[in-house]
Parts: sequence; C-alpha cells; structure tokens
Amino acid sequence: MKPLREVGEFEAIRRLAAGLGGAGVVVGPGDDAAVLRPSPDLDLVMTTDTFVEGRHYRGAWIGPEDLGARLAAANLSDVAAMGATPRWATVAMGVRAEHDLEQLASLQGGLVRALAGSGAVLVGGNLTAVTGEESYTLTLLGEVARDRAWRRAGARAGDLLAVTGTPGRAGAAVLWLSSSVAPAPGELLEAMRRPRSRTALVAKLAPLDAVTAAIDVSDGLAGDLSRLCLASGIGAEIDEAFCFQDPVLMRAEKEFAGLKSGSLVLGPSDDYELVLAVQPARREACVEVAAAAGVPLTFFGRCVHTPGLWIRSDHGATRPVVEVGFDHFSRDAEG
Amino acid sequence: MKPLREVGEFEAIRRLAAGLGGAGVVVGPGDDAAVLRPSPDLDLVMTTDTFVEGRHYRGAWIGPEDLGARLAAANLSDVAAMGATPRWATVAMGVRAEHDLEQLASLQGGLVRALAGSGAVLVGGNLTAVTGEESYTLTLLGEVARDRAWRRAGARAGDLLAVTGTPGRAGAAVLWLSSSVAPAPGELLEAMRRPRSRTALVAKLAPLDAVTAAIDVSDGLAGDLSRLCLASGIGAEIDEAFCFQDPVLMRAEKEFAGLKSGSLVLGPSDDYELVLAVQPARREACVEVAAAAGVPLTFFGRCVHTPGLWIRSDHGATRPVVEVGFDHFSRDAEG
Repeated sequence: MKPLREVGEFEAIRRLAAGLGGAGVVVGPGDDAAVLRPSPDLDLVMTTDTFVEGRHYRGAWIGPEDLGARLAAANLSDVAAMGATPRWATVAMGVRAEHDLEQLASLQGGLVRALAGSGAVLVGGNLTAVTGEESYTLTLLGEVARDRAWRRAGARAGDLLAVTGTPGRAGAAVLWLSSSVAPAPGELLEAMRRPRSRTALVAKLAPLDAVTAAIDVSDGLAGDLSRLCLASGIGAEIDEAFCFQDPVLMRAEKEFAGLKSGSLVLGPSDDYELVLAVQPARREACVEVAAAAGVPLTFFGRCVHTPGLWIRSDHGATRPVVEVGFDHFSRDAEG
Repeated sequence: MKPLREVGEFEAIRRLAAGLGGAGVVVGPGDDAAVLRPSPDLDLVMTTDTFVEGRHYRGAWIGPEDLGARLAAANLSDVAAMGATPRWATVAMGVRAEHDLEQLASLQGGLVRALAGSGAVLVGGNLTAVTGEESYTLTLLGEVARDRAWRRAGARAGDLLAVTGTPGRAGAAVLWLSSSVAPAPGELLEAMRRPRSRTALVAKLAPLDAVTAAIDVSDGLAGDLSRLCLASGIGAEIDEAFCFQDPVLMRAEKEFAGLKSGSLVLGPSDDYELVLAVQPARREACVEVAAAAGVPLTFFGRCVHTPGLWIRSDHGATRPVVEVGFDHFSRDAEG
C-alpha cells in the first residue's frame, strides 16, 4: 500500500505520466499541455464524461482496471456514435489522500489499454485530492471525414433501426447487485465491467453511407432512442420480439423475480452500445460488415412519422413505450 | 432558487447548452460529441484542469461568475504557456442536487465570457450529481504553428527570465482571507478572482522567435520555475530586488504581519501568469511588444548552468531558494 498522502502529488504524477504518448503525439505529459498533430482535412470530435463513485460505479462491484476500461468505453462510444475514430484523451482524477497509488495506476492502466484497443492514446491529465466521493473525468478527441460525422438529427421516417451487442445487460447487472445476495450471472457482470468498443465496426460502416443517424446507449435504449427521435423530428417503432430475445436476460428474469426482460432491454442501462438509423437499401451491406467484424447487429425497429416511441407486436398493433430514463438529480437517484 | 433536484438533469443540460458554439464549431452541444474544424497545418494543444470546492476555491471568497472565469484562466494560461491560441473547451461539472440552476448558469456564463475574451468557445460538457465537494473540470484545446509550441525544456544558460503581471497577489489573497478578519485589499482580491489572460500577448510574442521555454504560474513562481529548470537541465538566478518591488504586496506586508513580500512573490500562488525564458538579444523586442499590449512584463533573473534556484543580491552574492511548492495530498494541504 502506497497511499497518495505518503507518496505526494508530484511523485504520483511522475508515476502516472511515465510511458504515456503514442501516435500523433508531438509532446506528451509533463508540459503545460500536450501537443498533438491532427490528420489533414479531417474534422475533430470532442466529448467528455465523468464517473462519480457511488453513482456511476461502486468499488465493491468493479475493480480498478475494469473501472478504467469502462470509463474509456463511456467516451469511446460517444466518439463511435459520431462515426469517428478515437485519437487522444486526457483524464482528470479526483481521489482521496488515502487512495493507493498502485490501485490508481491499475485504473489508469485499464483506461490506457482500453483506449489503445480502439487506437487512442492518453496524453495528459490532472490529479487532485478530494475528501468526498472520488471521480474521474475523461475527455476524448476523435477524427472523422469532413462533414461526415453521424448526427442524432439525420434519421428519416422509413429508416431502419439497429443496435450493436445486447443492450440491457449492464443495467441488469446493477439491478441484480443492488437487490440480490445471490451471485450475479457472469454474462451480466461482464457487460457491466467490460463493455465492448464498437470503433472497429464503425470504421467499416462509415464508408457504406448507410447510417443516417446514431446515438450511444449510455442511459438506456428507450431514453437514448427517444433523444435521437427528438433530434430527427420523428418517432420510432420497436419490435416487441426484440425485447424478449436475449437468452441471458430471459434466463436472468427466470432466476430473479425482480428482473423483467422487456424493461431491462429498454430501461436504464449503460451498455455503451450504438443505436443506428440505417437506410433500408443498405441493410444487407451493414449486416455483412457486422458479421465480418464479429459484432452482433440487431435490426429491432424502424423510424416512423408519428412522434414518440412505440412497441409493435407481431400482429402489427402498436402501443406507446412508457419512457424510462435516468435523472441523476432526481430524488430516486440518490444514494 | 431553482435547485437542480427540482429542475432535473435534462432540463438543466438544455438550459446550459443553449446558445453555445462559435468559430470552428461544426456541431455544438446536444449530440454525442461536438464536431470541430481545426485550422490546416497547425498542431493542436490539449490541457485539463480541475477546481475542487474547499481546495481550489471557497464559495465565500469568490462568486459563481468569477469562479467560472478563474477556471477558464487556469486552462487558458496552460495553452498560452505553449505559445498557442485557445480554441475549444468542454466542462464537466459535478454539483450537489441543491445547487441553484441560476448560479450554475452564472458560473458557466463567467466561463464562456472569459474563454471568449481569449478567442475560445465552450462546445459541450457533462453534468453529474455529487454529495461531497463540488468540482469543475475544464478541458481546453488550442492551436499552434507546427513544431513551434513553447516547451518547458528549451531554456539554456544565459537566457533571461521574464514574468507577466504581478505574481504572488492571488496567493496573498488566499493567505489574507484564511487568516485575517480585516477586509483584504481590493488588488489582492482582484488577482485571485479575476486573473488576466495573456493570450493576446502570446500571439504577439510567438512570431518574435524570442521565447525558448515557458511555463504558467499555477503553483507559485519558485515551484513552477524550478520545473522549467528541471525540464531544461539548468538552474535559475532570481534578482532579490524583484521580490520586493510590487507596491501592493509591500503594502499588504505592512498591513498584515502574516505576509512577507519575498515569500509571497515566490511561494504558492495560482496567478496564471507566464514565466518565459528569453534569448538575451530579443529582450528589447519582447519589452516593446508587451508595452504595446499593455501587459506588465518584468525581467527578473536569468538561466544559469548550476542546477537549482538562487537569489542574487544587488551585490552579486547568491544564496539558494528554499523551495515552496504545494502538494495537494500532503497533510498540511488538508481542510
């Protein structure tokens, strides 16, 4: 154990800054700012996301290395949702003086490796002491062909809706861990602890000109899809069968009465998967690219003129989705 | 009063995101990431800095708008210290649920106006709830001519040392407010609450090819200068008279026995001024540019071969500076 209080700020920074840098980094950590070399003629994307202890994670549920990787995933998915390639990141860490330096180095190691897996490098950061909750803020830059970033606003009625991976599992893991003493299924824990980056798939999809709008699932499928719809001025129909087709969630529902597959798939869940609106004529091309990349891509509904989110049964009847988002400031979110 | 708990996260974000954007911003807040258009053939600089309540500021000492401006200054000075032009920023705010939305909007307003004063725009952010200390992390991008960023490592023995403004006043204000009930002098409060951006001066200095190394004073002149020296593999002599020439600090020393001008000028003080190493032959050119820009620029010493920091008396005798930095994790820094 080497608590930061004993190691000191400057020694800790020296340790954490050592060995950082990589592609496109002219000056790495250790100066007033990092110096980076953007690719010619590309647009830059910029996003930032914070994890707060007790709110976005609990130390008992996730180890430091996974936490670092998950923080990377939260930002990588935002860059991926713009159709962009992740490049450079800074991290601001607010930790207590008794925080162990080795644990902090593990967290940063998980972060750096997850970024590297998507082609991005950590180029600097900030370390400060707190007495309350700890928190980590990652800011990530990416690059995208000029004027070709995927917006939330580009979807049109008739476009198909697809999602990567198996949304709902991360939220199910949190529900399970909060409410049950029984060991949580490994697939749920893995979804929460090790969300996959979809950067490689995005790099293959972008040139297809198939995607008209995109958003990442950082709040829950229904909440995030409704934001895409609002931005695009449309509504969306979700096929009912889609809510009951993930065998892992169906099994979890049987094992633990508190879980309902339908609301797990649509409700609050930080899966960091991507929701894509796709031109119908390009559906097969997307399916082929996803299969080649080994990424599950499920077409689960379609964009419609009528605003709002709708569940469409096998018989074609529709009913509204009761929206389930997550408000960090609401009373229910406390604790 | 509109506490965030009642307003809700998404309404608060809508309010804070409204009207943001500006030069070089293709897509502003409201998507998964901002989209920016870098200038052709320039390098990018990237820095991040966090203010933690009770550690970097106290609500009783600084209003929300000044706090936002000061957060901007902390990052602007890092970009200026690279010889770069500030462009785009994101802010991650961690605030309590009872935080008033109007106060938060004032803070962001101060931030946005201070950035605008240096040619930069806020392009996005993150808002999350905390129960402990509040904190604000700004990440700022700037642009600089390719391979022309000012490094800490470029100073050579014989180079002259200059500093902008009047370092020490911000630290003096904090000392005064922590230890005295007497009203603090207005000039000290102003230095703490409204540090000046040196971006305009940097834009004039950069083409002169005069500056060999630079660092911003975010920790105190002695601490930051020693980091520049360490990076450059040199030492520095500070003229003794320089430590006793700011009339505001000299007056403060007389009025309040706890303050000593010499240690105020060299000791812990977040002034966000710039320390520059300058080629001797370019001194006059720098003086002229600073005078034209209306920015105080004081030549206070020189780079020497002998490592370490030294005070040089009027008679030429030198003695070592007892280094006075600030470690956020040390026991003394608590509270």
